[in-house]
Amino acid sequence: VAIAPTNPLREFDLIERLCAKLPQGRRTILGVGDDCAVLAPARGRQVVTIDSMVEGIHFKLAWTNPEMLGARALTVNLSDVAAMGATPTACVINLAIREGLNAVFFGRLYAGLMQAARDAGVDIVGGNITRADQLSITITLLGEVGDRLMRRDRARVGDAIYVTGTLGDAALGLRILQGQVRARGESRKYLIDRFLAPSARIAAGKKLARLDPAPAAIDISDGLWQDLGHILDRSNVGAEMEVDAIPLSSAYRAVNGDNPELALRGGDDYELLFCMPPRISDAALSRKIGVRVTRIGRVVAEKNLRLIDHGRAIADRSRRLSGWDQLEPSKA
Amino acid sequence: VAIAPTNPLREFDLIERLCAKLPQGRRTILGVGDDCAVLAPARGRQVVTIDSMVEGIHFKLAWTNPEMLGARALTVNLSDVAAMGATPTACVINLAIREGLNAVFFGRLYAGLMQAARDAGVDIVGGNITRADQLSITITLLGEVGDRLMRRDRARVGDAIYVTGTLGDAALGLRILQGQVRARGESRKYLIDRFLAPSARIAAGKKLARLDPAPAAIDISDGLWQDLGHILDRSNVGAEMEVDAIPLSSAYRAVNGDNPELALRGGDDYELLFCMPPRISDAALSRKIGVRVTRIGRVVAEKNLRLIDHGRAIADRSRRLSGWDQLEPSKA
Repeated sequence: VAIAPTNPLREFDLIERLCAKLPQGRRTILGVGDDCAVLAPARGRQVVTIDSMVEGIHFKLAWTNPEMLGARALTVNLSDVAAMGATPTACVINLAIREGLNAVFFGRLYAGLMQAARDAGVDIVGGNITRADQLSITITLLGEVGDRLMRRDRARVGDAIYVTGTLGDAALGLRILQGQVRARGESRKYLIDRFLAPSARIAAGKKLARLDPAPAAIDISDGLWQDLGHILDRSNVGAEMEVDAIPLSSAYRAVNGDNPELALRGGDDYELLFCMPPRISDAALSRKIGVRVTRIGRVVAEKNLRLIDHGRAIADRSRRLSGWDQLEPSKA
Repeated sequence: VAIAPTNPLREFDLIERLCAKLPQGRRTILGVGDDCAVLAPARGRQVVTIDSMVEGIHFKLAWTNPEMLGARALTVNLSDVAAMGATPTACVINLAIREGLNAVFFGRLYAGLMQAARDAGVDIVGGNITRADQLSITITLLGEVGDRLMRRDRARVGDAIYVTGTLGDAALGLRILQGQVRARGESRKYLIDRFLAPSARIAAGKKLARLDPAPAAIDISDGLWQDLGHILDRSNVGAEMEVDAIPLSSAYRAVNGDNPELALRGGDDYELLFCMPPRISDAALSRKIGVRVTRIGRVVAEKNLRLIDHGRAIADRSRRLSGWDQLEPSKA
């Protein structure tokens, strides 16, 4: 029971109505509508992740339609499951709703969520609705994984560092939405879509996890520089990265030229970053996992992260923690 | 990556630090610090629930210390697991933090959370921190349950309706905190504690689920009237309830007299409400499940909910949905 004025009726009705046509697979014994959902025992190990999207922090309603917003809220969780090499199975959703949003809005939000769940084979098995000052969508996603899974702490000296797809597109799309960067036509549309309607690399993650040995991996949600930092910290190693190797889309180049800053620091691409011995060519590896991958550097013993431009270090990870989330130009 | 000013460093550091000493049982293969947590396969069926506590909606910081707040955020989820007759196992926590709260506050909040998790045998296996305008704590709790579990949709005509403990204490405690009701001494302390530091009936729920047949059950979070309504709707039955039978604590009586309104409508008690054939006395059933239970009414075929006072119906559930969350005095 809430201490602030609230109408339990309307909230309860809302979630009931929204969830009336939820996709439910055979693993769901009891879905929305009881104190808990009940799921059949998982066949393998289980993965669990929780992520939240908050209005004004992670999105603005002026930029997105409700369907895209709903889909994106699930995708950011799907991406975490992809980074483990796992198969997403079921989710529960906490919706914090504010004044000024009506049932039509939430119907469309849930339509996007349900479509994304169907596409990923995920059952929406439960939820909660609460009132708040800000709209937010918090999702816990469950998944299954066999003995082979990808972790952040498995990078080894000598590994090559790879990324899927291209980087910086979503960050550039965000800056276009914010009016900080100008773009037109197809490039504008492509870049904004990368921000508003990202995909999670689930199929690629599962194929990567089956490689022997399974790569160390993370999804790039906070930006290459920071997320590679997480892998290095966890694995107790360092890395050298070639600035020219970072894969940029033609739309990115059309709008931002060769400036790699957003590809390095910008987040929200939801590509996979992984480290493994460089036994086959990028082209062969790309064919094997069904998505273009690019080798961008290598894991080294010295616990640093160095950005190389034509043989010269142009940026260095600060040893101070305060340098964690920013590139610090070397003084050379 | 957030679109509003944020400091990923501090947030990441914070959760890392808070989670450094997390309790981790043998079922946790990989805890906080990767894209997902990894859990050993569940032995039985799995239950999942998500619940959220939002500042200004569900609590005020002026009323509670951070430890109690953290513990309560887990307890509201534990109560949902208790209502299924399941054993809680693991949780993930989404923390939305606002300006003006420091690391000491969050350290204490997590201390309360961790203590409550330890007490309940729950592993905290993952989390997420985001910025927001309001503090909120959203927890997804997982649990295990065998073939015997309690559902809302299993009430049968002829069942007796029972509740554990006493009702209305938390709602009265809330009104004392809000200054709407005056109370002193032990009663004041007891009632406020029932609101701020509730317990979940996990042990009782597990024992109830082992009865044959397993009762229909729900936890009383929204108030007896409303939560019994959920059971009746799901089970497609009605009920008659004796107003004098509703168990009131001596503290409740000392402050509120015999007025049952808060015991009927007030929420946050986290007692269990269950329906089963009345084969044994309340005293014998209380001994069997280890907590005092009281028979308060019976399930009937007519799809209504009627409150009886000395043989006379004094309140009736409206057939209109708008009457869902309020008692409507009968015109008799």
